[in-house]
Amino acid sequence: MKISVVRDILEANDRIARQNRDLFDENCLLVTNLMGSPGAGKTSLLEKSIDSLKDDLRIGVIEGDIQSSQDAERIAKTGVPVVQINTGGACHLDGNMIRDTFGEFNFKEMDLLVVENVGNLVCPAEFKVGEDFKAMILSVAEGDDKPSKYPLMFRESIVLLINKIDLLPYVDCSLEKIVEDSLKINPDLIIFPISCKTGEGLEDWCNWLRERVKAKNEMSGSALDM
Amino acid sequence: MKISVVRDILEANDRIARQNRDLFDENCLLVTNLMGSPGAGKTSLLEKSIDSLKDDLRIGVIEGDIQSSQDAERIAKTGVPVVQINTGGACHLDGNMIRDTFGEFNFKEMDLLVVENVGNLVCPAEFKVGEDFKAMILSVAEGDDKPSKYPLMFRESIVLLINKIDLLPYVDCSLEKIVEDSLKINPDLIIFPISCKTGEGLEDWCNWLRERVKAKNEMSGSALDM
Repeated sequence: MKISVVRDILEANDRIARQNRDLFDENCLLVTNLMGSPGAGKTSLLEKSIDSLKDDLRIGVIEGDIQSSQDAERIAKTGVPVVQINTGGACHLDGNMIRDTFGEFNFKEMDLLVVENVGNLVCPAEFKVGEDFKAMILSVAEGDDKPSKYPLMFRESIVLLINKIDLLPYVDCSLEKIVEDSLKINPDLIIFPISCKTGEGLEDWCNWLRERVKAKNEMSGSALDM
Repeated sequence: MKISVVRDILEANDRIARQNRDLFDENCLLVTNLMGSPGAGKTSLLEKSIDSLKDDLRIGVIEGDIQSSQDAERIAKTGVPVVQINTGGACHLDGNMIRDTFGEFNFKEMDLLVVENVGNLVCPAEFKVGEDFKAMILSVAEGDDKPSKYPLMFRESIVLLINKIDLLPYVDCSLEKIVEDSLKINPDLIIFPISCKTGEGLEDWCNWLRERVKAKNEMSGSALDM
């Protein structure tokens, strides 16, 4: 009985996420769902990535938090449009919450929408919001046992950003073990070791995003030609 | 409709947690529900605390994880009885899961049971398991904005352990801000800045636990005298 309720919620969410995705596709808009633990560095990554990308790409951001608008305020300072969702207790974003923000954006004039999920290594991985792909960020301060203890998010993501590598000399964490165990769970995972503090590795990630936006535009272009 | 389902689940859980608590009280057993983000240092705290306490107190541990038994294996090395719960996807422990472990312990010969919850700063705070009190652990690597972004856990806990203070020189995090913002949410919160790596602050926490166990025994003793 409990399982069937959960299934109904997930199925209903999948339908709404599919509708969101159709709208994003019509607008040639690449959408990523960014997930990670509290304090892994999601907002810092966004700030740095926007700095690097904003001359090439028209970016928008949705910030998901239980409460407060601190993250949206940080993103607003970069000059890109941002909407804060306060879930009021819910530990993840879902398709409906994303749909409720649509009036706030002009998707026709955007190339990339980043949805920063609630800080949580568990639940967000279960709920689609209409994204092209999920990306996750893990801090080395969290330890190298996280892939084997929280495998779903590693399985559902196509990108893993391993953040705070500047802290590696001070923490008991093996970067190699994170990489190895993540690839055991998801052999196709694209991995970027980064430091939002020093900037190390961020250009590789940003260049990869540039390519993804270009590919989405080309795909949509050829679909329109048909 | 969705809200009423959630309420039913919480109410049913409260009933079971109450029954668990009654059984713990009958056995003069102090029970704490230890919560925190993935990688905040819950298991490390337990290892160090058991080292300090095991000559004075008879301790047992329940380890909650989505999957894997790595944490239980770490605790087993300290020599105390430990049971691993794999939630198989669920992002928190509940009263039923704790009840299912009862056959594995001899509560009459225990003073302290620590329940290490699933790594998650959101959901575990909503579900009682039968504990005397909730304790939470936050790593300074997570940043000083966590109290205002995840207030429920700070409100529900009576103890906050601020871990990895050895990393303070290397991270953008103000210990003072964490303390100040936590006390705004919960003015009665007892706060221990600690480092599981260097051992700093751990004896204060362990002495506080010793006092709590003593108080529980005295309370139960006088209840039996009546």
